[in-house]
Amino acid sequence: MEQRSYQALKAIKKEAGKSNSVYMTTVRFGQVLGFSQQSASRLLIELEEKGYIRRKLENRKQVIEITDSGLEVLYGELNELSRILSQDMRVVIEGEVKSGLGEGRYYVSRKGYIVQFQEKLGFIPYLGTLNVKVDPLYEGNLRRMRSSEGIRIEGFKTEDRTFGAVKAFRARIGGEDCAVILPERSVYTDTIEVISKEYLRGKLGLKDGSRVRVTVDLS
Amino acid sequence: MEQRSYQALKAIKKEAGKSNSVYMTTVRFGQVLGFSQQSASRLLIELEEKGYIRRKLENRKQVIEITDSGLEVLYGELNELSRILSQDMRVVIEGEVKSGLGEGRYYVSRKGYIVQFQEKLGFIPYLGTLNVKVDPLYEGNLRRMRSSEGIRIEGFKTEDRTFGAVKAFRARIGGEDCAVILPERSVYTDTIEVISKEYLRGKLGLKDGSRVRVTVDLS
Repeated sequence: MEQRSYQALKAIKKEAGKSNSVYMTTVRFGQVLGFSQQSASRLLIELEEKGYIRRKLENRKQVIEITDSGLEVLYGELNELSRILSQDMRVVIEGEVKSGLGEGRYYVSRKGYIVQFQEKLGFIPYLGTLNVKVDPLYEGNLRRMRSSEGIRIEGFKTEDRTFGAVKAFRARIGGEDCAVILPERSVYTDTIEVISKEYLRGKLGLKDGSRVRVTVDLS
Repeated sequence: MEQRSYQALKAIKKEAGKSNSVYMTTVRFGQVLGFSQQSASRLLIELEEKGYIRRKLENRKQVIEITDSGLEVLYGELNELSRILSQDMRVVIEGEVKSGLGEGRYYVSRKGYIVQFQEKLGFIPYLGTLNVKVDPLYEGNLRRMRSSEGIRIEGFKTEDRTFGAVKAFRARIGGEDCAVILPERSVYTDTIEVISKEYLRGKLGLKDGSRVRVTVDLS
């Protein structure tokens, strides 16, 4: 039952504090959840099999680390509960502008994406992305975004290859409408890609290292 | 198990949307939670006994209403999860200044409270409270506040009577430090009481009907 995973991960994260890993014996884990050691042990195995935690021994003590998928369960619950309770679904993400490798430009200029950007976001993007390296202080908000569904931009095939689905989120940067885009299947990274109908570097006078604040709408 | 109540209440609130009550058959309730009709029926009885929901028949259909205590379970979980995930624990509450009945002044000037205000909040309050009728749009944030522990101001006894414990929350209003206070045992009301070392009506030029924004720190 997925609900059990949520409770267990919440308990581990609570012990871990700001970090995502913590020294925690199986006995302690059981105590926190009110389970016998045997049940606690089974649950830890289950969480490991689901890819939500990793365990290792350090100085003969058990370290439990919550994985990115495990964190997604927690941030996903936060998003769901916030939505149900009509909380503000905008989050702020701050970071520094950095140069990409031109990949963003390549992907954003594929016709299969462009037509959907126009249809679903209401604009044809400038053919390039603004890369922002997210400040560690905003990691939680970045994870909330990654755990949200967003606006789905479908994948498609061309003659020679397949392009995967992308999630897009309406956002604002320096008074401009924009969107944050994210491959649907992607490993966690601290860099986000922003698209807009404007050339944002020019319009907002940004260069590598400029600090920016992006307000992302998760609803 | 309290966790079951949380899941059940979340499911009901999801169906109810912005409202706190919804037409919902026991069968439907079971479907949503993946329970048999029998288990669903038992769970509804349990929720009723705990005071989390009320049920009635309207046009021969079952209406499930989540009570204030039931909502507290949901907002309490939101607070706990937000805290664990290091989210911003400040909430904004907006409303209109209104006149009280002088009760606030009476309570705030009791010595047993004043010494604790000074010790725990760092100020001796002006002997009166600013009453703010909260805008319905901010009801969710008000409930988040009510579901939080806050800073505990202990109750005390005098020769003739008992004064109950109070929860206090550090807050800001119009650039001034202040605190929102709330009797620990109280029924839900849409009015909050704000104390400050300043006479806020004078300092901020407020009168009945003035709109104010209070930023409350739940952490």
